[in-house]
Amino acid sequence: MKLVLKAIFAMTRGIPVLLVCFSSIPCSADEGMWLFNQLPLEQLEKRYGFRPDAAWARHVMRSSTRISTGGSGSVVSSSGLVMTNHHVVEDILQKLSTAEKNYLQDGFFARNHAEEVKCPDTEINILWEIEDVTERVKKAGRASPDSGTAEQARRAERSAIEKESKEKTGFHSEVVMLYRGGKYHLYRYKRYDDVRMVMAPEVAIAFFGGDADNFEFPRYCLDVSFLRLWENGKPAKMEQWLRWSPKGVGEGDLVLVSGHPGSTQRLNTVDHLRFLRDVAYPSYLELLYRREIALQQFALKGPEARRIARGDLFGIENSRKAIRGTLGGLLSPATFESKLGQERVLQAAVAANDKLGASLDDWERIRHSMDASKKFREEYIFLEGGRAFWSTLYSSAKMLLRLAQEQGKPSSERLPEYRDTRLPSVRMRLESPAPVYPALEQAKLTDSLTHFMKVFGAEHPYVKLVLAGRSPAGRAHQLVSGTTLADPAVRKKLVAGGSEALEKLDDPMIELARSVDPYARAIRRKYEDLVTSVRTEAYGRISTATFAATGTGVYPDATFTLRLAAGVVKGWKEGGRDIPYSTKMAGVGQIAAERKGEEAYTLPGSWLKAAGKIGADVPFNFVSTPDIIGGNSGSPVINRKGEVVGLIFDGNIHSLVLDVVYTEEQARAVSVNAEAIIEALRKIYGMDSLVKEILAR
Amino acid sequence: MKLVLKAIFAMTRGIPVLLVCFSSIPCSADEGMWLFNQLPLEQLEKRYGFRPDAAWARHVMRSSTRISTGGSGSVVSSSGLVMTNHHVVEDILQKLSTAEKNYLQDGFFARNHAEEVKCPDTEINILWEIEDVTERVKKAGRASPDSGTAEQARRAERSAIEKESKEKTGFHSEVVMLYRGGKYHLYRYKRYDDVRMVMAPEVAIAFFGGDADNFEFPRYCLDVSFLRLWENGKPAKMEQWLRWSPKGVGEGDLVLVSGHPGSTQRLNTVDHLRFLRDVAYPSYLELLYRREIALQQFALKGPEARRIARGDLFGIENSRKAIRGTLGGLLSPATFESKLGQERVLQAAVAANDKLGASLDDWERIRHSMDASKKFREEYIFLEGGRAFWSTLYSSAKMLLRLAQEQGKPSSERLPEYRDTRLPSVRMRLESPAPVYPALEQAKLTDSLTHFMKVFGAEHPYVKLVLAGRSPAGRAHQLVSGTTLADPAVRKKLVAGGSEALEKLDDPMIELARSVDPYARAIRRKYEDLVTSVRTEAYGRISTATFAATGTGVYPDATFTLRLAAGVVKGWKEGGRDIPYSTKMAGVGQIAAERKGEEAYTLPGSWLKAAGKIGADVPFNFVSTPDIIGGNSGSPVINRKGEVVGLIFDGNIHSLVLDVVYTEEQARAVSVNAEAIIEALRKIYGMDSLVKEILAR
Repeated sequence: MKLVLKAIFAMTRGIPVLLVCFSSIPCSADEGMWLFNQLPLEQLEKRYGFRPDAAWARHVMRSSTRISTGGSGSVVSSSGLVMTNHHVVEDILQKLSTAEKNYLQDGFFARNHAEEVKCPDTEINILWEIEDVTERVKKAGRASPDSGTAEQARRAERSAIEKESKEKTGFHSEVVMLYRGGKYHLYRYKRYDDVRMVMAPEVAIAFFGGDADNFEFPRYCLDVSFLRLWENGKPAKMEQWLRWSPKGVGEGDLVLVSGHPGSTQRLNTVDHLRFLRDVAYPSYLELLYRREIALQQFALKGPEARRIARGDLFGIENSRKAIRGTLGGLLSPATFESKLGQERVLQAAVAANDKLGASLDDWERIRHSMDASKKFREEYIFLEGGRAFWSTLYSSAKMLLRLAQEQGKPSSERLPEYRDTRLPSVRMRLESPAPVYPALEQAKLTDSLTHFMKVFGAEHPYVKLVLAGRSPAGRAHQLVSGTTLADPAVRKKLVAGGSEALEKLDDPMIELARSVDPYARAIRRKYEDLVTSVRTEAYGRISTATFAATGTGVYPDATFTLRLAAGVVKGWKEGGRDIPYSTKMAGVGQIAAERKGEEAYTLPGSWLKAAGKIGADVPFNFVSTPDIIGGNSGSPVINRKGEVVGLIFDGNIHSLVLDVVYTEEQARAVSVNAEAIIEALRKIYGMDSLVKEILAR
Repeated sequence: MKLVLKAIFAMTRGIPVLLVCFSSIPCSADEGMWLFNQLPLEQLEKRYGFRPDAAWARHVMRSSTRISTGGSGSVVSSSGLVMTNHHVVEDILQKLSTAEKNYLQDGFFARNHAEEVKCPDTEINILWEIEDVTERVKKAGRASPDSGTAEQARRAERSAIEKESKEKTGFHSEVVMLYRGGKYHLYRYKRYDDVRMVMAPEVAIAFFGGDADNFEFPRYCLDVSFLRLWENGKPAKMEQWLRWSPKGVGEGDLVLVSGHPGSTQRLNTVDHLRFLRDVAYPSYLELLYRREIALQQFALKGPEARRIARGDLFGIENSRKAIRGTLGGLLSPATFESKLGQERVLQAAVAANDKLGASLDDWERIRHSMDASKKFREEYIFLEGGRAFWSTLYSSAKMLLRLAQEQGKPSSERLPEYRDTRLPSVRMRLESPAPVYPALEQAKLTDSLTHFMKVFGAEHPYVKLVLAGRSPAGRAHQLVSGTTLADPAVRKKLVAGGSEALEKLDDPMIELARSVDPYARAIRRKYEDLVTSVRTEAYGRISTATFAATGTGVYPDATFTLRLAAGVVKGWKEGGRDIPYSTKMAGVGQIAAERKGEEAYTLPGSWLKAAGKIGADVPFNFVSTPDIIGGNSGSPVINRKGEVVGLIFDGNIHSLVLDVVYTEEQARAVSVNAEAIIEALRKIYGMDSLVKEILAR
């Protein structure tokens, strides 16, 4: 898998991910995505004889990075070098490339700081401090008469806390909801918005085996890249960074993964899982199917079409394979039986003890929220979630419009994504110099408008409003050819000019966004009042009851915030065969020879040229048991000393079900071995000074 | 396009195509798919100074062939040589191929009769005589109290007429419903069930440009193949065959196309078109999207997986592109406005004159049939139409079971596809020696069962019945690994053994088909009573009214029966550019050079080797205006002398809307020029004796 964050429903960036998460099952084995201020010390000590102290935790935490493209990473030098996956920066490479210079295909290699290129609209955050603000947030909601207004009050309070924190400390501050409303923690981040590309290998070796081998093992991928944090026009000086392990890693070794798992559904109620199984995942898959075909069709037009469609296509292929895997797990009656068993135990405890803080009504409320959601989720997803408008230009139009509207209100009353603390990210995206391709926009928008007509019917008022009497293709052509928003300078001016500048502009894409806006806002409000808020409160109570019933040893579902997972390096059994824990670098040449003529298995020239120099026995990729999921892409794999031994880039096919239930029988995380990274940098790419920087202690 | 018959809803063969057709608009320009016993003589004379006599019509009719793979063809020698498209025999080549010998990739070249190989389960029919039996069929339905029983009575009468005809004349006989119930004609065919493969070029040149260039022009495809009819162990001696034109064809020339257009929706009511636009086509497209992805994923496993998935994948790509095009046309408000205009004129005439034989209620009835259909079409399509069971093995199980059940009843009371006159085809298919690939079956069945769960929900009684407590993948594995129906010898024995043999068999696939059967039959009956029959009667009356209102000059919608279309060789204008009417053979080398490295544009070795020998100026593909549609694939293009000048293989992208409305502004049929066929046979394939046979007069 490419473990980037799967943004369910949110094909258009900037839309909040809807599938909020929750988890609090008593843990067994290597299960658990642990909060850094709540590490399972007893468990680690008992299982592995390892008890990390506060300094260890702080060091690892402050060396871990969250990347705005949806992945994780780690600081690996004193000069701000950040290691992550190639596929985490793929989007950036795509934005930096042109018809003449294709960095995705050819790789990117800066031989000195001057050659490091700024990444468009990319920011990196490092978690610096955590503070529990649960009481303050919950208190804000208590006086409210219903779920909807309580949620609004809690949001306003979170916004106020973030603002105060930012003003007081200068840190970028986010109040994170954990345990689905059970706890709220204030996270303070060091933010870097000058991020430069240092090194990325060719996609042919980063993603060797392509879609076919994605989520599979054995693997032979150099899915690594290096970025650098810059500050004040110079490489940033770091207080904390991870050292490289001089010893490598072997079977049975304890490994720890520090990264940002995006989203899990581990303790969803059974009704909620049914909803995912029967409604949400299948309909999302259908969307992915149609978009994958649309992009394939576009790419058939020729090499340049193929190049510009590639970023979107990769993302869709990856999500499609991931969701197919997760759904495959959910479709197994055994998965459901086990979930149902767990739920009945908890419900029995709740029914028997009214001091646990929840009641059986909370499960009912969640069930009702599913029914409510079914009634208007299409409207929500298509209008506010942007499924009708598969277009970067439309997203820009909507964001410009909302930015102008929201800036006129106090920060705490705005839509959360336009609060003061979020504005730098919004502006960065709107002013991105990344190219926009009209032909691709036209093809994508035509497809999504066709889909919109399909779902609502050609004669629905929304459809008439959006299509304005044209066919999907005709309307897309009119919008894409008529707008000036492809030009970053225009967007920059509009950001500065606000509502007044927008009013004056005669731009069909802005006009469309403006005409949709009131309906989109109304349906969003409705969705939040009748679905999101109801779930937050009910899950919050169920979560409290779970704490009370099971004692300590619980971790929250993933929320794309920093977590630590622990496990061991270990192969698995499949169909009677043993799958060994590691591959060697010699293997990639063998596979390339076996699959000769297949594009996904064709090595780049640099590898063919250096074939004789590569150490045949150097370990290449390995598997281990830590509990990871999409968003963990680029997480460092470290040993008990906190030294880098590998780099997470994938999970095997059995790991896809981790979204809903942990299993270590066959589920494995897949990593690039740290030794292979050094070997390739030296022998294939001749980047000795980069190696020197990484190995410096 | 690959103009093979698009079987809407009927991904599993043997299911009757549901979209019955109707047309009777007054014709203008080159519109019209004419019946051979009702040629538009006045119109042809007026427009082209051409008045074919009865002998001409009979000669062309008896030289035209219908191929059971869903295409058309023509007899082109006295020894039973049949010319059709490569893509019409693609399925046959796939069945003849093995992991060791890939005829699709390498081509097939019989140098003498002994090397001609029998095509599995392939039959070819030649229309010999037509008789109008309208009165007899309509009379049979008149005494019935409702649409449902009237339709059953008409079907029984059609069955009786076919049986009588077969007994009297020895010809295979079919009563064809035309004008959607306005007329019934008895068609007598000469049937050939020993069909042998003679010549097929490599798919790389037959389908040069692949999915990207499908439905496009300019083109460079040698989409031709030759079969031979055998009789009594020898090449068949033909009474009629088409001669080759010694002169070729030029811009502005009159051309005629004799073939089997599959299905059009030209005079559907506006409500019916809305249903196609909003419900039928989009849901079919979603099916195609998911199946295309499933097959692509299967094919990624390696070259052999790719080979065996290719046949299914080609078919799906072609349908997907065709339906996207048709739907694109339907989504244009202009198309709808024009349809609505036509309908209002006809309705006004009907309202003003009660002698026309129809009333406005007939439109209402059709509208109600859409509502009825919406309610249970999913059940019909998934259970009886087989959408839940994407599996050759399941189709065999169902067919074996039904054959055994239906044989116990009088022919006229059976399901139409098991009437006596149809049994030879049923047995031929059941006893087919074509290989069945378990891994592919498993992948396909898993996908369709997953889709079935998605549409009905995991807890629907049908789903529980079919899944039997397993996940889709688990159930598919159990069924595919447990059945013995992959073995043709087993199927042959079961055909002979009937119900008794089936009862004794312990086969999970048969068991599944047996448990589904009563539900499938019930929903089919319901669908026929409340949808099909209602439409037949209402459209029959509307059609009668149209005759009366517009006089002569009407042709029925396509029904995969023989039609003649006329037009001229002519390019078109697009975006201000002139698209020339023809390409030259030199062009294919130029395109291959421009698109170097792209698989779809890679020429086969035979062409690269012979490059210097090919006449650069020999015309390769050309476009013309005759009115064609899916099913016309392989139709001969002839001149006024009845001589072959080309071979239909595609329509351009603008022709896709011909499904619902004819336009000659940009819509064009695409053909291989007869001269290119001879040039390639001689210079590239060295098949001089085949050329000699073709050119003999």
